[in-house]
Amino acid sequence: MDDQQLRVSKIRDGTVIDHLTAGEALDVLAILGIDGSNGEGVSIGMNVVSDRLGTKDIVKVEDRELSQSEVDVLAVIAPEATINIIRDYTVIDKKRIERPTAVTGVLSCPNRNCITNANEPVNTRFMVLDEGLQCNYCGSIVHEDEVPTYLDVA
Amino acid sequence: MDDQQLRVSKIRDGTVIDHLTAGEALDVLAILGIDGSNGEGVSIGMNVVSDRLGTKDIVKVEDRELSQSEVDVLAVIAPEATINIIRDYTVIDKKRIERPTAVTGVLSCPNRNCITNANEPVNTRFMVLDEGLQCNYCGSIVHEDEVPTYLDVA
Repeated sequence: MDDQQLRVSKIRDGTVIDHLTAGEALDVLAILGIDGSNGEGVSIGMNVVSDRLGTKDIVKVEDRELSQSEVDVLAVIAPEATINIIRDYTVIDKKRIERPTAVTGVLSCPNRNCITNANEPVNTRFMVLDEGLQCNYCGSIVHEDEVPTYLDVA
Repeated sequence: MDDQQLRVSKIRDGTVIDHLTAGEALDVLAILGIDGSNGEGVSIGMNVVSDRLGTKDIVKVEDRELSQSEVDVLAVIAPEATINIIRDYTVIDKKRIERPTAVTGVLSCPNRNCITNANEPVNTRFMVLDEGLQCNYCGSIVHEDEVPTYLDVA
């Protein structure tokens, strides 16, 4: 068990996204826009044995501290995750993320006629409902498994 | 350096795909059909510091030994990789993979009218050329960055 827990080693500085449901690690990478091509140091463990979850995924991103809007989107697909911010091998901020009621400025609306797609100075805003994320302006729904597709990568 | 080298820990049994060019880890997962949803224990390091390559990616897949046809496809996108088969923490087979001259039965042809897409008892076969992989039957080219798209996942 100890060996499994340490399958992905500690990082000096960055963010640890832990207690992901097994199978979510690649979705997290998509949400964070990480494919390794930008030189980011990233470690990923899939199906790591966990006391709490049976098995879990874990993602460690070096030298990057997630913003609140990134945490909000992660919370939609992985509400059970924990996010720890690490500096000099020490957890300086540890939070259990919670499913937000709304997500602002991170997703684009799938409706091309929505005002948020019209080059107007309007931020996207989606309400988080059981059936998915609903655009505040036109009512379009983004289902949770579509979230990576509609990420508004700047 | 030692710390970086060990960022993804040893596995008891399985396959270690090492010395990948930084940014290739996710392509390797796509080729192997791994997204973590089948319970596979997988560890991934992106942009690990390497004496040989500057930085590299590494993928460790537990309890799975790659087949020769899987190695052949990996060799197309990552000819510089090394593949070590591990049993009981020991490397039992260590090979530097080489770009193959042909790949049989792993990719589907993008040409829908190709005989290999006509439910005939014909295996796909692609010649590996500088410009990509060329179908032996209809001459269609699959470029290397399209390989994950045309993997014939059974």
